[in-house]
Amino acid sequence: MILYSYWRSTTSFRVRAALNLKKVDYTLVSVDLVAGEQHGDVYRAVNPGYGVPALQLNDGTVLTQSLAIIDYLDATFPEPPMVSSDPALRAKQLAAALTVATDVHPVNNLRVLSRLEGQFGANADDKVSWMRHWMAEGFSALEALLPGGVEYAFGNTPDLADICIVVQCVNAHRFGLSLDPYPKVARIEANCLAVPEIAAAAPDAQPEAEKS
Amino acid sequence: MILYSYWRSTTSFRVRAALNLKKVDYTLVSVDLVAGEQHGDVYRAVNPGYGVPALQLNDGTVLTQSLAIIDYLDATFPEPPMVSSDPALRAKQLAAALTVATDVHPVNNLRVLSRLEGQFGANADDKVSWMRHWMAEGFSALEALLPGGVEYAFGNTPDLADICIVVQCVNAHRFGLSLDPYPKVARIEANCLAVPEIAAAAPDAQPEAEKS
Repeated sequence: MILYSYWRSTTSFRVRAALNLKKVDYTLVSVDLVAGEQHGDVYRAVNPGYGVPALQLNDGTVLTQSLAIIDYLDATFPEPPMVSSDPALRAKQLAAALTVATDVHPVNNLRVLSRLEGQFGANADDKVSWMRHWMAEGFSALEALLPGGVEYAFGNTPDLADICIVVQCVNAHRFGLSLDPYPKVARIEANCLAVPEIAAAAPDAQPEAEKS
Repeated sequence: MILYSYWRSTTSFRVRAALNLKKVDYTLVSVDLVAGEQHGDVYRAVNPGYGVPALQLNDGTVLTQSLAIIDYLDATFPEPPMVSSDPALRAKQLAAALTVATDVHPVNNLRVLSRLEGQFGANADDKVSWMRHWMAEGFSALEALLPGGVEYAFGNTPDLADICIVVQCVNAHRFGLSLDPYPKVARIEANCLAVPEIAAAAPDAQPEAEKS
């Protein structure tokens, strides 16, 4: 399998973490979003929707959208599971994951920030203020949603919600949002980053990080 | 079960459609987002994350996030299934659904539009231009992603991708984006709206529509 990934992409980080936790062998191909490689002919032939990550299976099938890719990995490499088999618990894990994946990440990603600059003349400070606002909203919602009293989001092993949360925390630090008001979220981040498979998926652990 | 829903909320529309297709009995409770009822004490006690939809199960458990709710419904009311049991096809259905649910809807929802107005002084025309841009991007990605040659997104019965797509098409019409450049999407919309269970879930079929 080939994972097309960008080192700083939080959605790529999610899939790298799931692949590592499941001990799946894969080849990592870097797509430099800042250099615009996602719009080049080479990558458009892989993923016409031009986002990362994309997972190319051995039969050539290309899967896109991080949560869809992780769902596939859970079906084909079941251990450890990323969501519970209990429908209600699974729905709560998905809801926490989607709180990051729909309510925070899409509003803060590179193409939206570019549009804010292009359409509304947003400067760097405006963009940071915008990003912090949505991260704070999302983390507040998570504090209300998460049960607490466990090591990770919903138990004592990392699941899909944890993966989405730790990834967003890394972005929070990058853009100067303190996690002090969000103790459950902060605990999840610390516990996740102590897991070698998750730490190895983080942006700073990627080869491109050293060059930047 | 109680579904907390707002008639014009596209995420509420998704869950109403799934409930109707699965012929699940439920009580509909309206939460008027424009009047701010989601921030009132009554609704915050149901869903502290204050979004709609929320599904309250008979045991009092409250599920949030439309895709998590539909995942729960698929586990507990399997017929008709909203996603395939084949992992790769399921991942493609999820990817198409997420193209709407992560790449289009969150960037265009009410709270983001309010923030555009508050932070950047966006006027009504600016907001419509913003919304059309993200819908056009999403529909273009869907045209590349969808197989075509079938009645619905991935086959001849509606699935999760169809539900997310038809809902977004209704919003496209509302904000004046032509679907002419997106023939697969337009076909899915027409076929979905011909299904009585989906048509009954549409905003215009809700009791509040008549009052507005």
